[in-house]
Amino acid sequence: MKIKVSFLPGGREAQVDEGVCLLEAARLAGVGLEGDCGGLGSCAKCRVIAHEGLAPPTVLEQERLDNQDIAQGMRLACQAQVKGPAQVTLLPSSTARHHILEEGVSRAVRLQPALTKHFLPLDVGDWKRSGPLAAMIRERLGREGVRRADFSVRALQSLGAIDPAGQEGLTALLFQNQVLGFEPGDTSGQLWGLAVDIGTTTVVGYLLDLTHGRIAAVASALNEQQIHGADVITRIDYALHHPQGLDRLRELVLSTINGIIERICQQQGLPDQAIYSLMVVGNTTINQLFWGIPPRLLIRPPYNPIAMEGLSASAKEMGLRINPLGMVFSLPLVSGFIGSDTVGVVLATGLHKSRKPRIALDIGTNGEIVLTDGHRMAACSCAAGPAFEGAHIQCGMRGCSGAIDRVDFKHGRIACHVIDEVPHQGICGSGLVDAVSGLLASGLITADGRLLTRQEAAGSPFADRLSEEPLTQFRLTEKMLPPASRQVVITQKDIRELQLAKGAMLAGVSILLDILDLGPEDIHEVLLAGAFGNYVRPRSALGIGLLPTFPRARIRQVGNAAGSGARMALLSQAAIKEAIRIAERIGHIDLARYPDFQHHFLKGLAFPHELARPDP
Amino acid sequence: MKIKVSFLPGGREAQVDEGVCLLEAARLAGVGLEGDCGGLGSCAKCRVIAHEGLAPPTVLEQERLDNQDIAQGMRLACQAQVKGPAQVTLLPSSTARHHILEEGVSRAVRLQPALTKHFLPLDVGDWKRSGPLAAMIRERLGREGVRRADFSVRALQSLGAIDPAGQEGLTALLFQNQVLGFEPGDTSGQLWGLAVDIGTTTVVGYLLDLTHGRIAAVASALNEQQIHGADVITRIDYALHHPQGLDRLRELVLSTINGIIERICQQQGLPDQAIYSLMVVGNTTINQLFWGIPPRLLIRPPYNPIAMEGLSASAKEMGLRINPLGMVFSLPLVSGFIGSDTVGVVLATGLHKSRKPRIALDIGTNGEIVLTDGHRMAACSCAAGPAFEGAHIQCGMRGCSGAIDRVDFKHGRIACHVIDEVPHQGICGSGLVDAVSGLLASGLITADGRLLTRQEAAGSPFADRLSEEPLTQFRLTEKMLPPASRQVVITQKDIRELQLAKGAMLAGVSILLDILDLGPEDIHEVLLAGAFGNYVRPRSALGIGLLPTFPRARIRQVGNAAGSGARMALLSQAAIKEAIRIAERIGHIDLARYPDFQHHFLKGLAFPHELARPDP
Repeated sequence: MKIKVSFLPGGREAQVDEGVCLLEAARLAGVGLEGDCGGLGSCAKCRVIAHEGLAPPTVLEQERLDNQDIAQGMRLACQAQVKGPAQVTLLPSSTARHHILEEGVSRAVRLQPALTKHFLPLDVGDWKRSGPLAAMIRERLGREGVRRADFSVRALQSLGAIDPAGQEGLTALLFQNQVLGFEPGDTSGQLWGLAVDIGTTTVVGYLLDLTHGRIAAVASALNEQQIHGADVITRIDYALHHPQGLDRLRELVLSTINGIIERICQQQGLPDQAIYSLMVVGNTTINQLFWGIPPRLLIRPPYNPIAMEGLSASAKEMGLRINPLGMVFSLPLVSGFIGSDTVGVVLATGLHKSRKPRIALDIGTNGEIVLTDGHRMAACSCAAGPAFEGAHIQCGMRGCSGAIDRVDFKHGRIACHVIDEVPHQGICGSGLVDAVSGLLASGLITADGRLLTRQEAAGSPFADRLSEEPLTQFRLTEKMLPPASRQVVITQKDIRELQLAKGAMLAGVSILLDILDLGPEDIHEVLLAGAFGNYVRPRSALGIGLLPTFPRARIRQVGNAAGSGARMALLSQAAIKEAIRIAERIGHIDLARYPDFQHHFLKGLAFPHELARPDP
Repeated sequence: MKIKVSFLPGGREAQVDEGVCLLEAARLAGVGLEGDCGGLGSCAKCRVIAHEGLAPPTVLEQERLDNQDIAQGMRLACQAQVKGPAQVTLLPSSTARHHILEEGVSRAVRLQPALTKHFLPLDVGDWKRSGPLAAMIRERLGREGVRRADFSVRALQSLGAIDPAGQEGLTALLFQNQVLGFEPGDTSGQLWGLAVDIGTTTVVGYLLDLTHGRIAAVASALNEQQIHGADVITRIDYALHHPQGLDRLRELVLSTINGIIERICQQQGLPDQAIYSLMVVGNTTINQLFWGIPPRLLIRPPYNPIAMEGLSASAKEMGLRINPLGMVFSLPLVSGFIGSDTVGVVLATGLHKSRKPRIALDIGTNGEIVLTDGHRMAACSCAAGPAFEGAHIQCGMRGCSGAIDRVDFKHGRIACHVIDEVPHQGICGSGLVDAVSGLLASGLITADGRLLTRQEAAGSPFADRLSEEPLTQFRLTEKMLPPASRQVVITQKDIRELQLAKGAMLAGVSILLDILDLGPEDIHEVLLAGAFGNYVRPRSALGIGLLPTFPRARIRQVGNAAGSGARMALLSQAAIKEAIRIAERIGHIDLARYPDFQHHFLKGLAFPHELARPDP
């Protein structure tokens, strides 16, 4: 007996078994309800309101929620078990439309996709010629430069399904010299591809017309794997230690991508059969989960994936809802810590072609840094933690509707900008960096990261916003101002989280500079990629010392460069070859094993002295 | 609501929907009930006894069955629809264990199977080395002579599933340089293959130990596709004109092979996972149905298959219950009429290596002939019709328990040998040829095939066996002698059927001789392959003029040579290459388009004069 659970606003429904948690019910209903902790009940971000049909609040819910909230029917979706028909009201912060970074720089490529179509005119005489049809097609393709065309069983099945009567010819779909299939008539003008950047948190798909090379549409979604953990380590653990855990995670990412395909095709009025080719990039863990490769070796020294090469498989076999004759590809990996998304960033920004020292930082859920001295390339991955994403922060939230994304301390006042200009519900990474940078500039935080007491700050126009009870914190906004908003505070613990995150990034930058024997003054350009990298204000990033001061560098925000790299690879086999060379050329630095890491990290924790003074 | 139908003897059961015919119910119950006509109700060979649970006899059943039989509950399984729980009694002739020809000649080959296993010893240090595991394995395989090993996604999935802890190493499964998968530990001693000869009527599987090259077991079954027609034309029609017809036929042949796999593995105490490789041969139609290729072009001039080459696919994708990492292969075809079974016959008999003129005849459901003059090879396929298989013959049956398979006219008496020496139920192909040869030798049939009347035969000791009412026929056995037997007669129509069959074969032989500019006296050896070819007595075959008199030829019965060819190909890549060259070298003669065909055919209808005399 299935039980109906419906979600408001929107009215989406799911039929679930008794005992299922609301988070799973939401997923089944197609409702994007989010949490950071993978359903452990620790982040308390999947709060919902429900009065009926649920088991009583668990001990964990009683710990994480106020008694007042519980009295009003507030529950943690990851803990509350369905017992009967339930109507669930979503809170604005948990359903906010996510602002997923979809745009990015890209370099021009020559249009030469891996999958091609060849129209072969055939008349009645051709069908009646002696000798098998495949042999004649092989000969014709040979004249078009396809040597020794090799037919798969599936290609012959599709060829056999075509009735020659009334056909002007047929169209062959090829991957190099492998014939993947046939379609009746001339369909050579219909060849679409999807470039997919699979992030730990968000998945972005770009629909490309492979006959002209243009982007037709973009769509994004939260990675459904989040239900089993916000970070890759939790997901690896789930994949290895739950029965069918790997299959489940694979299904979730495929379901996310299939959802994007469905949406993007609907938007464009295209059948999903029109997409023949899919190119994915992602970090190494996400890549292994996507391909269904058990990530066992990723958590054991020396933390290598089983194979680094870009992989390919038939779309049908993979379970992706594009044309069943189509194919799925991935770009190569660099190491267990540096995935094909970083290869995509380098490909899109052309960092590998730079003759001058340049550095690229891709700050998403994970932070990756690539540095070139004009000859060599070195990369590292920083365990920055989730602070830049607004996670593990008292009033933190992702960069979506209702998040404070910009904070200005000016003339004794604080101005907050809220995404979509609605009542604020929390603060996202770029807002947090702004706020802490402002607190530093206002002298309310010491260089070692301590928030002053109200007494110590006496004389500051912001002194009365400081308090020590119940937590050492700074009131960024007032309670219920504007109405329906949530009070946002910056706690001492938040500042410590940010210090850890920026310390890790800064240590990474410093070590890469050391290794390539460069100083900050040698760098000509700093490229900031990824969602956080794109939205953070460079001045604030420098303000908190997330980056060292690069005196001669231009700072350029390049958007979702990983996705741009995937797009280039989808359009051009030359770009795929370039990506293979990039992956081979990047030297990976394992920070944890670098002897000076502790020193750099501790040094990086401190905030810059010179900026810890009031704004003029 | 499913309805239970049980079958006696044996007690097998099936749960079926209302309205399903008993033939389908028998298939679901795993009961081999046979007919020739594909469920059209015309052959009346699927007779059973059932008193309850069925719809009343159809008009067709009333036509085909005696009123007396109907009164006793006799039904045609292909017509009788299930309405309620039914108990069905099978008649001996419809359930007889089939004597399927399993043995055959074979040439020695060097053991070098397409799929190989390589054990790679690995110690803890190897697992902990830097660099991806796949790269290290590629390098090790390179040292063993495998160049640039290419890993499929499935191979990496199976590699990732292996926990290095406590492993002495792992075993790689390869097809050429493609790595198909990995197994923990050393499994290189376990590598089995199945060679399968898929006949229109029967399927034979040979289990081979690919590490030693020996045959471990043989098993056979009736091709389950028969439910949709005894001949390939009926099946093509079903594949093209029934919704999901092709899928259905493909599932039936896969189900037949999976049944053989299950049985053969049980016999040998092997898990089905131990089989990694499957090599099939079969006629062109059967080949296309096996691979799921719509056979549209096979029934239109110039009657070519879409592709001639041998195909391969993953066992998992094909739905065959061997190791999911394994592969399935087929040998190449020669034309729409000459399949890989004929290529197998040539491969096994070495006909292509002969420096002297030799001829091979594979007489199964279809008749194929290959002739070599010591240099060239020519082949044709004869529309012999099903008479040699006992079909379309008044009292005909397949060569199974209860069939008269040998008939001797001696000293005024007729001696019949019955397979398994049980009460006879009918006559099979070799018995029919014996009987007609005996009738010819006794002077009871004229050279143009007319059965004498009793008056004309006056003086013959067999004259009283002749009658004109209700049919012009010859009583081979007496009614109910021995008890529980069925009276067997040879009708004028049976003789005509046999004339058509042998006329077609003889025309084929004559035309091939013409084309290669040979006479019967040039032939050094006649090879008889296939079930009928193996069991027919050469003297009787010559007696009815199925073969011309080859004055200098040795006649050799080579058994299931097609299956032997499949076994050679499974054991040896060199044999596969040889098969490819054979398929390219055989010239196919389309008899229907040969200008002198009518002349040869009409000439071939006549029985030999010189033998139309009484036995001494």
